[in-house]
Amino acid sequence: MRLLLTGLKKLEMKEAGKVDPQEGFRLLDVQYCAICRTDAKMWNEGHRDLVLPRVLGHELIASDENGIRFAIWPGRICGRCAYCLSGRENLCEQMKIMGFQHDGGFQDHVIAPEEALIPVDPDIPSHVATLAEPTGCVLNALERLHPRKRERIIIYGGGSVGLIAALACREMGVVPLVIEKDEKKIFRSAAFQRAENIRLQKETTESEFDMALNACADPVAFSMCISKLAKGGRLSFFGGLTKNKTLETNLLNLMHYKEMALSGAYGLTGKNMRDGLILIGKKVGLFETLIEEIIPPERVADLMPDILRGKTLKYVIDFHQGL
Amino acid sequence: MRLLLTGLKKLEMKEAGKVDPQEGFRLLDVQYCAICRTDAKMWNEGHRDLVLPRVLGHELIASDENGIRFAIWPGRICGRCAYCLSGRENLCEQMKIMGFQHDGGFQDHVIAPEEALIPVDPDIPSHVATLAEPTGCVLNALERLHPRKRERIIIYGGGSVGLIAALACREMGVVPLVIEKDEKKIFRSAAFQRAENIRLQKETTESEFDMALNACADPVAFSMCISKLAKGGRLSFFGGLTKNKTLETNLLNLMHYKEMALSGAYGLTGKNMRDGLILIGKKVGLFETLIEEIIPPERVADLMPDILRGKTLKYVIDFHQGL
Repeated sequence: MRLLLTGLKKLEMKEAGKVDPQEGFRLLDVQYCAICRTDAKMWNEGHRDLVLPRVLGHELIASDENGIRFAIWPGRICGRCAYCLSGRENLCEQMKIMGFQHDGGFQDHVIAPEEALIPVDPDIPSHVATLAEPTGCVLNALERLHPRKRERIIIYGGGSVGLIAALACREMGVVPLVIEKDEKKIFRSAAFQRAENIRLQKETTESEFDMALNACADPVAFSMCISKLAKGGRLSFFGGLTKNKTLETNLLNLMHYKEMALSGAYGLTGKNMRDGLILIGKKVGLFETLIEEIIPPERVADLMPDILRGKTLKYVIDFHQGL
Repeated sequence: MRLLLTGLKKLEMKEAGKVDPQEGFRLLDVQYCAICRTDAKMWNEGHRDLVLPRVLGHELIASDENGIRFAIWPGRICGRCAYCLSGRENLCEQMKIMGFQHDGGFQDHVIAPEEALIPVDPDIPSHVATLAEPTGCVLNALERLHPRKRERIIIYGGGSVGLIAALACREMGVVPLVIEKDEKKIFRSAAFQRAENIRLQKETTESEFDMALNACADPVAFSMCISKLAKGGRLSFFGGLTKNKTLETNLLNLMHYKEMALSGAYGLTGKNMRDGLILIGKKVGLFETLIEEIIPPERVADLMPDILRGKTLKYVIDFHQGL
């Protein structure tokens, strides 16, 4: 079975015909696939890299006939361009992304390139391991900020990605502050905050941060990132901004006058994903608190509006449930 | 005599009373002071760092009682903050800039801190040496882009700064293309282009540049910089953008999706200015072609509108002329 996006806001359950994988590819059993806010965005309004009809889902754990479990790095690449050869394969000139330009994890079986398979440590339950992809994306973004110990970072957005970013910062000796407007969402991650002593606040009077990261699509959050940075501050442009909005030159000019550095971050490398799994392995119980609920595929369509509004933590689809 | 900016569009010639410099400061004779487009901007609309009334001018060559000539690094700094101690003194927390928060070179004498004085090589005529400041600003911007040999850069704006940037790139083995909309301006720098084989064009079909630099204030040029960069491209945010304009999130998102890096650049360090003088020393005749005309102070006010519109190359004031 597969959940097929056939048009905007049209998710249909379809029977999936069995396909034999080409050479270099494997047919795997999907154990769990988490839903990314980007999946909801594609459902709602499309995406620059989306080709329809499409099985969404790029945060999945799948297993082979021997029960060996893999996280799947979601890119299919040429392996020969300057980006691939310099370790920035997420920028590959021929990049096609699972769940965007070819079918992803919203189905019970998936075809994936052998070189994209990353074994999952036995200590990590599969539903928690689905967080390898967002965690790897966070690590890619942070890497490009070149964080130093004891530096302060402000993170806008206290969803799963903002929380993972805060945790990854802690591990690097960086001091995070997460800003989240929604009180219910602050309440929802109380266990996470307590365990790692991470501050999640609706607002702050603190300023002059060394780094900032926008873990949400709101242009207001992006503008606050700029406003809250010190001279020479570094901004990770992590979340794509809501389309058809504008930002004022007066604000953008602060990046000029204060010699800020902005680094765009999109996706992740295979190394980022492996490092993400290592981080998850260190804090399995903590990452588990980021899972909102494990759901059968029939519930996905109804949950999309909430996921799009960023009201929830991580929903994880189990295709073996409820069928 | 001094040319005092007493309000927007109010430049007045005033008698300057002699002042004895404090300890650590020198009273110098201003030989020449070039007019920056930023001076015209301050005259027209003010500037975030401008305090009125003010003697403008931060691109000057001055000499002491023995006739020794100096370029003056235009900052006054604390010397103790994290920025000063890490070699980014242009970001000093206490920064006050000559011609912005204290008096600059639009006068016949100037007071400057001893440590800001950079001797000028005898082979460089003083009026050409006034280009040390803009050249140093360009070097600061390029340094932050980490250029590599054979990379391609697109520069928007073919005024003196855009041309100096193209020349500095050539010296680094980087391949520049300068975009300038104004045909008269392209014609004006023909000698410069020929001498260094620098391409100055009204437009281009080339794309996928490694680097971009906005040597003009037009938000359209800034947006073109983003549009013309390859994945992983680096953008120098060199020129502050015209105020009260907007940029679309759809465009800014390209920096996210294509993992671009933007680096703001504002002002210059003392080292940048010394390096600027070295570059000028190598190409004195070429830099001389960037001087539009040497003028007496009485003409400054009338020229401000043209300078503001970026129609001209460098005007240089001679306070000993016409008085």
